Amino acid sequence: MFSCWLSRLCRGLSTPTGRVTHLIQGSLSRRLMLSSQRRIPELSSFVARTNTCGELRSSHLGQEVTLCGWIQYRRQNIFLVLRDFHGLVQVVIPQDESAASVKKILCEAPMESVVQVSGTVISRPPGQENPKMPTGEIEIKVKSAQLLNACKKLPFEIKDFVKKTEALRLQYRYLDLRSFQMQYNLRLRSRMVMKMREYLCNLHGFVDIETPTLFKRTPGGAKEFVIPSREPGKFYCLPQSPQQFKQLLMVGGLDRYFQVARCYRDEGSRPDRQPEFTQIDIEMSFVDQIGIRSLIEGLLQYSWPSDKDPVVVPFPSMTFAEALASYGTDKPDTRFGMKIVDISDVFRNTKVGFLQDALSKPQGTVKAICISEGAKYLKRKDIESLRKLAADHFNQCSVLGKLRLECADLLEARGLVLRDPALFSFLWVVDFPLFLPKEENPGELESAHHPFTAPHPSDIHLLHTEPKQVRSQHYDLVLNGNEIGGGSIRIHDAELQRYILATLLKEDVKLLSHLLQALDFGAPPHGGIALGKQSILLQAKFHSITLCLKFGLSLQAGAEEERG
Amino acid sequence: MFSCWLSRLCRGLSTPTGRVTHLIQGSLSRRLMLSSQRRIPELSSFVARTNTCGELRSSHLGQEVTLCGWIQYRRQNIFLVLRDFHGLVQVVIPQDESAASVKKILCEAPMESVVQVSGTVISRPPGQENPKMPTGEIEIKVKSAQLLNACKKLPFEIKDFVKKTEALRLQYRYLDLRSFQMQYNLRLRSRMVMKMREYLCNLHGFVDIETPTLFKRTPGGAKEFVIPSREPGKFYCLPQSPQQFKQLLMVGGLDRYFQVARCYRDEGSRPDRQPEFTQIDIEMSFVDQIGIRSLIEGLLQYSWPSDKDPVVVPFPSMTFAEALASYGTDKPDTRFGMKIVDISDVFRNTKVGFLQDALSKPQGTVKAICISEGAKYLKRKDIESLRKLAADHFNQCSVLGKLRLECADLLEARGLVLRDPALFSFLWVVDFPLFLPKEENPGELESAHHPFTAPHPSDIHLLHTEPKQVRSQHYDLVLNGNEIGGGSIRIHDAELQRYILATLLKEDVKLLSHLLQALDFGAPPHGGIALGKQSILLQAKFHSITLCLKFGLSLQAGAEEERG
Repeated sequence: MFSCWLSRLCRGLSTPTGRVTHLIQGSLSRRLMLSSQRRIPELSSFVARTNTCGELRSSHLGQEVTLCGWIQYRRQNIFLVLRDFHGLVQVVIPQDESAASVKKILCEAPMESVVQVSGTVISRPPGQENPKMPTGEIEIKVKSAQLLNACKKLPFEIKDFVKKTEALRLQYRYLDLRSFQMQYNLRLRSRMVMKMREYLCNLHGFVDIETPTLFKRTPGGAKEFVIPSREPGKFYCLPQSPQQFKQLLMVGGLDRYFQVARCYRDEGSRPDRQPEFTQIDIEMSFVDQIGIRSLIEGLLQYSWPSDKDPVVVPFPSMTFAEALASYGTDKPDTRFGMKIVDISDVFRNTKVGFLQDALSKPQGTVKAICISEGAKYLKRKDIESLRKLAADHFNQCSVLGKLRLECADLLEARGLVLRDPALFSFLWVVDFPLFLPKEENPGELESAHHPFTAPHPSDIHLLHTEPKQVRSQHYDLVLNGNEIGGGSIRIHDAELQRYILATLLKEDVKLLSHLLQALDFGAPPHGGIALGKQSILLQAKFHSITLCLKFGLSLQAGAEEERG
Repeated sequence: MFSCWLSRLCRGLSTPTGRVTHLIQGSLSRRLMLSSQRRIPELSSFVARTNTCGELRSSHLGQEVTLCGWIQYRRQNIFLVLRDFHGLVQVVIPQDESAASVKKILCEAPMESVVQVSGTVISRPPGQENPKMPTGEIEIKVKSAQLLNACKKLPFEIKDFVKKTEALRLQYRYLDLRSFQMQYNLRLRSRMVMKMREYLCNLHGFVDIETPTLFKRTPGGAKEFVIPSREPGKFYCLPQSPQQFKQLLMVGGLDRYFQVARCYRDEGSRPDRQPEFTQIDIEMSFVDQIGIRSLIEGLLQYSWPSDKDPVVVPFPSMTFAEALASYGTDKPDTRFGMKIVDISDVFRNTKVGFLQDALSKPQGTVKAICISEGAKYLKRKDIESLRKLAADHFNQCSVLGKLRLECADLLEARGLVLRDPALFSFLWVVDFPLFLPKEENPGELESAHHPFTAPHPSDIHLLHTEPKQVRSQHYDLVLNGNEIGGGSIRIHDAELQRYILATLLKEDVKLLSHLLQALDFGAPPHGGIALGKQSILLQAKFHSITLCLKFGLSLQAGAEEERG
């Protein structure tokens, strides 16, 4: 249910816009380009064609054009629809004797063969225009044609309405990429990342710096991929993130760093995780939380696709404590209400036994979610499943958050629209705890995020007395209930960093001596953030690409027999 | 000698410009920004400062400013020079009693400590202006100051004139990065790559696509890094280049792809190689050689730093045969003449024994290099060293090329300037052979570049009869005697690719069956190029960064004891 809801959300993001899905593929890339504030790219520079298939309109009437593309349809050996990345165009196959060789080429080439045609842009005869096709007013009267590559029988048809299994799509990824949706996804991602670069680099003076990926092991964190080196017994590690590098860059006076950084985590093949992923990695000197938040709000506003509703800034923010209390999670989906309400006071003077039981315990509360119209929409078996969920997660703090989402799923399954997939509800979650009790040994502390996170300035005095009470300067960016980014103001004081590592976290300080030394050598105050997280679904959403952020052979196919 | 010449070349590229090296650090970043065709980036957005140290001029007189930076000098507890990435500015330490706490902070902080100061921009007293300093007309009258981080004793001073060993610079890379030159290098690289992206993405509709780096083994090529997977006996490989991916993207109809791609080769620690490197990776459909060459010429012209002489296009081109004949190498340095001349005819009728010997052999020739003013500049021991070089490389085809460069080195050591380090002489080398005899077994063929390179259209008929005579559609881009890029038109015909792989190269076709199958499914004609090669020196030159393209801990430091 949850994953169903997630994939629905994905669809919401990755569909160009609800309004045009009924249109035949075509105007999309152009719309993407027009939506940019720049000049329209030249799409036919340096190549054999004069135009793309998708761009031809009545304004091109009479022009001699050369097009290259794939044969999408052929109708009665009279019409042929040619496709390129930009769209579809109708080509009229010449029927007169003198053009027999052209006709032969165009009629005999199998579907999905690659052809080059030259001819004239003409009007379609009155009544034969196709208003659903961006090029539907014109067609190409062909003079010459060339078969550039014949296509053998395909494992599936390149038509969006033809359903393929995910396995088949992955196996023949290059065929899947010919689809409207995949082309759109990859191009949208490219444009969004480009606009992010423009914002960071051209508007705000950030420096794009590549950091090494053959690195050494970092203590703590996720399992890392190791790479044997040529020296026996020694190996490299692929980095989980450029965290140490970017902090060292700040010590190096780079002031403003960013990188579209590849990160690696060897966490096995969970369906919603991928071993390599990409994040927009940012670090700034002399900045505070508000500075980073404004930067990111501006970044998303600037790079947001212009065919979507504009991003409204500043994003609302909520403390970790408030998120837990009202939404039962640190990543609330704020597209809908149904908040968790503390109704302890209402019941404090009643005699209902199990409520009194609960209220008598330390920090015992009674909480409720008001499902308006719940009585109308929810059926008996829905209530049953909610009860079961509650029982299954009994005594877990997150149960109320889960119940809230489950209620929303159930209501939507019954036809109520609670979470508009076209709505993007950003939220900052702040004031996380700096430490958590270790799972395996609750008497000891571990970092709630990472050990370089600075404590909240108001709580520094508690570090020596009640470290568990210290809030951090970590912040998460949440979108529609998913964490899409996170960062913090870092510790720039070597003594404080040593105290936290050695005394509070009981870490081996030697493993991070290079970082501690760097802090001693004039490290400026600094902070940063990374957008785009490891989850495939989140990557997909962030980059608006369904399921496969990176194209290509499935990663599993990468693993091979080890060499002798 | 050769490496000395190379590093001289590096200096030529990485020095901002010969004309300003005598200036005190300051205006450089700003110049970089002004030189861009875009609006000037806001360098103080989102942070505590109002201005950067390096930007203040007389036009700021009277303004209240807040600056953050590192203490570069202090003079008699009266003046302090504050540095940030943007430049230097003089701060007047207040001497009156009421500002005793400010004075204490600014006088007691060790050099390289990080401070924040607020105050007014005032004129320097007449006669005290410093014309060598971009901010030399003004100084800051400080009202308040804050020590942000005190600096401990450094392993070396952050002053450009202080010489450090390479080892020390690598160990404390973050301190080295504070230098004028390193800041310049990293910022120049970032801006150049950004402009390349603008050209490709915004002007010509290229799609930036990230391809996976956890991949499978590719037959042939360099040794690859392997990464054990979770399945025993199976491993991933890091890719040597995205070659297969980008060809598959063309089959997928992406039309125009680029990526600033990380590549990996496990070739040990040769001093001029690095295990991971970056290339601007490009592939286009429906393109020919001339198309790719025009694209790249435009790319370099567009992204070239505006403080250098503009790049003149088109670049000259030369066949492989001509390069070998006139320069004795496939990467000629065309900044100077001294071409190799065939003077066989002159000697054909003489009686000089060793010349007649040479001429009587099959394809025997007598060749010469004319060193004008050689008699004036070269000393006896220079001639001796040339003789020795010739003897050491006797019978190697490349000896004349080596002699030519050695002559240039010798002449320059004697004070003649042959190769202006500010000159950038681009050259296309084309018409390479498609195959070479295998070194270990000259009866068999191997690809001169890679097996996906298309044969020259004029030579296709020779594939079945005299494959050794077939020229390829490979092209190299050479700059001042260094290969800085290379690419080719690829084979898009599956049958031709199978014939070359199986029959001519005797490769196991099964290992590339996925690529062959993709060619069968409507692959468009396509070609591409990659700029930026593995050699550290070439990377350095291309990206204008001396020695360390990527900042940070030396890669050797990445190799660690293997885990249990």
